[in-house]
Amino acid sequence: MGDRAAVEKVLAEAAAEGRSSLTAPEGRAVCEAYGIPTPAERLATTAEEAVTHAEAIGLPVVLKIVSPDILHKTEAGGVLVGLRDAEAVRAGFAKIVENAKAYHADARIVGVQVQQMLTEGQEVIIGSVTDRTFGKVVAFGLGGVLVEVLKDVTFRLAPTSTGEALSMIDGIQAAEILRGVRGADPVDRDALAAVITGLGELVADFPQLSEVDLNPVLATPHGATAVDVRILVDPDAAKEPVRFTQEEILASMNRIMKPASIAVIGASAEAGKIGNSVMKNLVNGGYAGEIHPINPKAAEILDRKAYASITDVPGDVDVAVFAIPAKFVPAALEEVGRKGVAGAILIPSGFGETGNIELQDEVVAIARKHGVRILGPNIYGYYYTPENLSATFCTPYDVKGGVALSSQSGGIGMAILGFSRSARMGVSSIVGVGNKADIDEDDLLTFFEQDDNTQLVAMHLEDLKDGRSFAETAKRVSQHKPVVVLKAGRTSQGAKAASSHTGALAGDDKVYDDILRQSGVIRAPGLNDMLEYARGIPLLPTPKGENVVIITGAGGSGVLLSDACVDNGLSLMEIPPDLDTAFRAFIPPFGAAGNPVDITGGEPPSTYRNTIALGLEDDRVHALILGYWHTIVTPPMVFAELVAEVVEEYRAKGIHKPVVASLSGDVEVEEASDYLYDRGVVAYPYTTEKPVAVLGAKYRWARAANLLPNLSQR
Amino acid sequence: MGDRAAVEKVLAEAAAEGRSSLTAPEGRAVCEAYGIPTPAERLATTAEEAVTHAEAIGLPVVLKIVSPDILHKTEAGGVLVGLRDAEAVRAGFAKIVENAKAYHADARIVGVQVQQMLTEGQEVIIGSVTDRTFGKVVAFGLGGVLVEVLKDVTFRLAPTSTGEALSMIDGIQAAEILRGVRGADPVDRDALAAVITGLGELVADFPQLSEVDLNPVLATPHGATAVDVRILVDPDAAKEPVRFTQEEILASMNRIMKPASIAVIGASAEAGKIGNSVMKNLVNGGYAGEIHPINPKAAEILDRKAYASITDVPGDVDVAVFAIPAKFVPAALEEVGRKGVAGAILIPSGFGETGNIELQDEVVAIARKHGVRILGPNIYGYYYTPENLSATFCTPYDVKGGVALSSQSGGIGMAILGFSRSARMGVSSIVGVGNKADIDEDDLLTFFEQDDNTQLVAMHLEDLKDGRSFAETAKRVSQHKPVVVLKAGRTSQGAKAASSHTGALAGDDKVYDDILRQSGVIRAPGLNDMLEYARGIPLLPTPKGENVVIITGAGGSGVLLSDACVDNGLSLMEIPPDLDTAFRAFIPPFGAAGNPVDITGGEPPSTYRNTIALGLEDDRVHALILGYWHTIVTPPMVFAELVAEVVEEYRAKGIHKPVVASLSGDVEVEEASDYLYDRGVVAYPYTTEKPVAVLGAKYRWARAANLLPNLSQR
Repeated sequence: MGDRAAVEKVLAEAAAEGRSSLTAPEGRAVCEAYGIPTPAERLATTAEEAVTHAEAIGLPVVLKIVSPDILHKTEAGGVLVGLRDAEAVRAGFAKIVENAKAYHADARIVGVQVQQMLTEGQEVIIGSVTDRTFGKVVAFGLGGVLVEVLKDVTFRLAPTSTGEALSMIDGIQAAEILRGVRGADPVDRDALAAVITGLGELVADFPQLSEVDLNPVLATPHGATAVDVRILVDPDAAKEPVRFTQEEILASMNRIMKPASIAVIGASAEAGKIGNSVMKNLVNGGYAGEIHPINPKAAEILDRKAYASITDVPGDVDVAVFAIPAKFVPAALEEVGRKGVAGAILIPSGFGETGNIELQDEVVAIARKHGVRILGPNIYGYYYTPENLSATFCTPYDVKGGVALSSQSGGIGMAILGFSRSARMGVSSIVGVGNKADIDEDDLLTFFEQDDNTQLVAMHLEDLKDGRSFAETAKRVSQHKPVVVLKAGRTSQGAKAASSHTGALAGDDKVYDDILRQSGVIRAPGLNDMLEYARGIPLLPTPKGENVVIITGAGGSGVLLSDACVDNGLSLMEIPPDLDTAFRAFIPPFGAAGNPVDITGGEPPSTYRNTIALGLEDDRVHALILGYWHTIVTPPMVFAELVAEVVEEYRAKGIHKPVVASLSGDVEVEEASDYLYDRGVVAYPYTTEKPVAVLGAKYRWARAANLLPNLSQR
Repeated sequence: MGDRAAVEKVLAEAAAEGRSSLTAPEGRAVCEAYGIPTPAERLATTAEEAVTHAEAIGLPVVLKIVSPDILHKTEAGGVLVGLRDAEAVRAGFAKIVENAKAYHADARIVGVQVQQMLTEGQEVIIGSVTDRTFGKVVAFGLGGVLVEVLKDVTFRLAPTSTGEALSMIDGIQAAEILRGVRGADPVDRDALAAVITGLGELVADFPQLSEVDLNPVLATPHGATAVDVRILVDPDAAKEPVRFTQEEILASMNRIMKPASIAVIGASAEAGKIGNSVMKNLVNGGYAGEIHPINPKAAEILDRKAYASITDVPGDVDVAVFAIPAKFVPAALEEVGRKGVAGAILIPSGFGETGNIELQDEVVAIARKHGVRILGPNIYGYYYTPENLSATFCTPYDVKGGVALSSQSGGIGMAILGFSRSARMGVSSIVGVGNKADIDEDDLLTFFEQDDNTQLVAMHLEDLKDGRSFAETAKRVSQHKPVVVLKAGRTSQGAKAASSHTGALAGDDKVYDDILRQSGVIRAPGLNDMLEYARGIPLLPTPKGENVVIITGAGGSGVLLSDACVDNGLSLMEIPPDLDTAFRAFIPPFGAAGNPVDITGGEPPSTYRNTIALGLEDDRVHALILGYWHTIVTPPMVFAELVAEVVEEYRAKGIHKPVVASLSGDVEVEEASDYLYDRGVVAYPYTTEKPVAVLGAKYRWARAANLLPNLSQR
C-alpha cells in the first residue's frame, strides 16, 4: 500500500505552482512513496554541498539540474554523468548551472541533484499512460533504442496484480534476455514486478498522473531501481465515464431482450418502408408478445390496432422500435420515456455518424431523464431467437442455437446474417449497436452472461466507449462463456502525439491486443475467422489438457496440420511408448506412429476407426485432429459416418474430447464435412488451417478461463 | 574480384596441417583478399614485439592468442581488450600465453595478435553457412545478444549482387537502427553491402569454406570493419548436386507432358485395380494419342491390344505409367529404358517413403543408364488437360485453364483436385511428385515456363532436393508467370547443431522464406490460400502501380478492408483533391470520400456504378477493392451485374485494372460472388480478408517481376 499522504503533499505543491510536471526529486518522492526504489540522491544548492553529498553517496555520481522550468534536462545540458572525484563534482556543479542558464535565462533553479550512478543492470522501461479507451494502463519493455525501434512493449490495465506484472515481464518478445542469456544471471523478476504493481497502484490512486515514465529502470539479479522518473499531471486524466451497475443493466436488458410488449414507432402498411418491414418481421418471425403499431394516420396495420402515440397503448410497453426519420426521434422519445419503456431501438440514421452529434446528445439526454436505454442509433435492429424476436428491417432468422453476435456496422451485421443462414449456425441473438450512443458491448455481455440461451458471444467492434469496463466485464464473462472479438481498425492512426516514451510506444492496437488477451477474449484476426470461431467453438467439448494428437491418412496433411498447430499455439503430444505401441498395432509397418500418427493412405475404415477410438479412449490424449485422404478403400462418406459413430460412442460413455477434421479429396468431401459438422466434429474440406484454428481458439479460451491445468502462463 | 591466389595459399597451409578451421590471421588474410576490411593487426612472438606493434597501430589495442589448437579464444582466457599503454601490453602478452597454456598444455602457440581496438560503431553480424537445401547462403543481422534472442537475421543465396546485399540491410526488422535513430548518423550502407558481396564471392569461389562468421562487423558512418573472423573448412561443403541443362529437361518434359504414345505397365481389365483405373482415365479422359496396355496375361484391355512387354509395342513410346508393385519395377524399367521411353511414371509406393531407399536408388540408376526420367515414385500420377491426359488412378479432370499445380503429397493432390472441381478452376496440369527420386519442381517449372497453356504455377512442397537450382529457376520463371509455393513443414526441426553463430541463427524456415521471396515466389501461408491464389491471380490484370482504392457501401467493411490492405502490404492511395471532388459528386454529403470511399448504405445502383467507373477511368488509380452491403435498393445480383458490366465496358476501352470484391449480406451474396468471379472480378461472400489477400498476392508477384514502377525495394 502506498503512502498517499506523501504523494498528496507533492501534488499539492505542484498544483499550487500551476505546474503540469513534477521535478525529478518530486518524482522520486512519489515513487518511493509507492515502494519503487530510486537511486540514492540529495539536493545540493552549492558546489561544496554537492561534493559532500557525492562523498556520502559514493562516487561516481550523476549531476542533474533541478528546475521546474526545464523538462528536457539533457537538451539543456543539465545532466553530467560519471563524475569520479570531488574536483569533477565541483566543476560539474558550476558547468551544469551555467548550461541551464544559457538554455533558459529565466529558469528558476532549485539546485543540482547529486545521484548515485548505477553502472550495471539491464535497462527496462516501465511507464503508465492514460489511454483514451482503457484509461490507466501500465507498460513494460526493454530499454534502449533497439527496443524502441522494434516496439517490443506490453500493456495491462492499472493496477495490476503481481501475477499480471510477471506476465508482462514474460510477455515481451525479448523476455529471454531477462531470464539470462549467454550465461548472464537472470534479473530479479519479483523486484521488477514490484515496480510494475507499485506504479499501477500509484496511478490508480492518483489518476491525475496522466503519464509516468520510469526510464530506464535498471534491473539486476538483486533488485530494480528507477533511475529516471518523469511524471506529468493533468486533472482531466482523472475523469471516468459514467457506468451503470450490473443490476441496472440487467433490469433494462432483460426487458429489452425478452419483451412482453413492443411498439413500432412509425409502423407502416406500405411495403418497402422500414416501418413495414419491422412489423412484418415481428409478426412473421413468430414473436408471441404484444405488437403495437404506432402511426397517427392508420387505424390498423397488419391486423394490429394502431395508436397515434405510444402513450395511448394500454398496459406496459417494454421496447419501442423507431422507424421514423431522425428529426422526429426526440419528440417521440419523450413519449416513449413517459410510457416507461425499457429500450428504444433507434434504427434511423442521421445522428453522430453523419456529423449530427447535437441531435444524438439530445436524444441520449432525453433517454437518461426517463431511464430509457437506447440501442443505436443507425442500426438494422436486433434478433433474439428464443423469443422468436426479429426487431429489424432485415429478414427474420430462425435457426436457434447458442451463439450471440453483435456488430458495430450494418454491413457486417448483414454478413453475420448471411453466413449464419448459409452455415445453419444456431444463433440466440444478433444485435446491431451502430453509433453506441448508449447500449454497448458491455451491456450486451452482461445480459448474455446470465442468458441460458447463449453459450458464446462474438462481437465485431471498431472501438470501445469504455474499454476498462468492457475488459472487466469480458474477464468475468469469459470465465464461463467464450467471448470472440473482431476488433476492426487495427491500422492505428499512428502513435498519438505523446510527450512520454511510454506514450510513444502505445499504438492503439497493441494496447487493445494486450488488454483483450488479458481479459480472456479470443481475438479473431478477420471477419471470416470470427464467424467460423463462433460456429465451431460451442460444438467442441472443452479439452481437459494440452495433449493434441493428429491422426492422418495423408502424410502431407499431417505436416500441414502440424504447421497449423504451431501457428495456433497447440502442443503436439509426445506419445508415450505404450501408447505408441498401441497405435502401431493398428497401422502398417511403414506407417509412422509418433505424432502425427500417419496411418498411411489406402487403409480401410477400420484403421481410421481403431486409431481414433484409441485416441478417444486414452485419457492422456485431450484433443484429436483428423486428416482424411480420399481413397476408394475409405470413401468420404464412409469416413464421415465412422468418425461420427465412434465419437458418439465415446460420448455415450461420458468421454467428451474435441475432434476436428481436415478432409482432402474430390468434391464428395464437402458433403462429408457437412455431415461431420452437423454431428459436432468441426470439419472442413480443402484446408488444413481452418479446423486447427477453431481448435486453437477453443484452447485459447479454455486457458484464459483457467480450465486447463498447469499452463496459466502461456 | 577477389585475390584467389592469396586464399588458395592459406587453404593449402591449413590443409597441409589437416586443420578444419583457420587461425585468426589466416581468416583476416582471406577476408582482405576479398576486400573485406579488418582491423589493423600484427603478429607478435615476444612481449617487446607486441609493444612495438601496439605503438605502431595506435593504442588502445586488443591482444589475442594465435594457436591452431585453440578455437574458442575467449574461453581459454586468450583475449585481452582495452590495453592502453606499453606496460599493459607487455603484461598482457605474458598473461595471455600463460592462460593459453593453462587451458591446453600442448597447444601450439604461434604468437599473439596485436589488434587495433575499434571502440565505436554499430555491431552487426555477417556470415555464411552451407545450407543443406540451398548450399552457400550469406546472412546479415544486428550483433549483440538481443538480436540473437529475437533472431532478427536475413539470408540470401551466395554470391549476392550489391542490390541484394542492400536489400538484406533494409530487410531486418531493426533496419531503422542502421538508418540512424535519435539523431545518430546512418551507417555506411555501401560499405556494409561491400562486405556482404565480398563474403558471397569468397564462399562462391571457395565452397569448401563451410561456415564463416564475421562477428562482429563494426559499422560506422564511414565504413565497416570485420573485427572478428571465424572460418571453418570442410571439403564436403563444396559438393554440388548433379543438374540437367534446361535443354535436357525440356527434351524429356515435352515428351512426358505431350506424349504421342503411352504404355500402361500392369494395365488391368479388373475394376478396382490401379492398372484398370489408369487405363479408364486415359481412355475416358479423351486422350487422343496411342494407349498401349502392357500385361503378359491379357490379349486386350478396354478394346486396346495388350502386349506382354513394352519392347513388343510397335513404334516409339513416350511415357510408361507403372501400375505394378514396387518389387517388379526394376525389371520393367529396364525394358522401358531399352524402348527409349522419355518418362516413367512410378505410381507404386514401397520405395524411399517406406524406408526402402536401396530399391529407389536402384531404380534411379536404371533410369539414368537409359536416359529415362522418373516421376515419383509413390504418386497419384499426373494430368495435362490440353492433351486431355489423365495419367492417374484418380478421376479425370476436364476444366481447362491456365493453372498448373503440383503436390509432393497424394493427400494434398486430392485436395487440389476437389477444390479445382468445386470452384471450376481452369487447370492446365496437376502433377504428383511424391518421393521426387528424379523429376522435381525445378523440372516442372522449366516445362511450365515455356508452356503456352500455363499462366501460373502453384506448388505444394515439403522440401527441395536442390534449392539453389529451384531458386534460380523460379527467379527466371516468375519474371513471366506467377509461381505460388506452399512450403509445408515450417516447424523446423530446430536449429541444426551448428558451431557458428550464423549457423545457430539459420532456422530452416527463415532461410526458405527469405530465399523464396528473393526468387519472386509468392509464398502461400496455407493450403486454402495456395488454392485461392492459384484460382484468382490469373483472373486479375497486372496492376500498373501501387494506388489501391476501396469503394464501399458499408463503412464497417471499409475499415476491415483497410486492415486487410495493411496486412497484405497494399498501399491505400492518398486521393488527390480533384479526384476527391469527383468522388464526392456521386456520394451523399455525409458519405466519406478519402480512401475508403464510403458511398454509404442505401444508395442506388447508380452510385456504385458511377464511383467504380470513376476509379477505372482515372489513370492514377491502379486497383479497386469493392465492399458491397446488401440492401433492398441495390440487391446482390443487381450489384454483381452492374460491376461486371462496368468492368467489361472499361476492358473494351482497353482499361484493365484488378478489381476484387467483398460481399456482405444475406445468402444471395453467394450467387452474386460466383457471378462476379466468373467474370474476372475476384469476389467472396462473408469475408473482407480473402479478396484483399488475392490482390495482395498479385501485387507481391508484380513487384518481384519488376512490373511496378519505383518500388523494387519493398
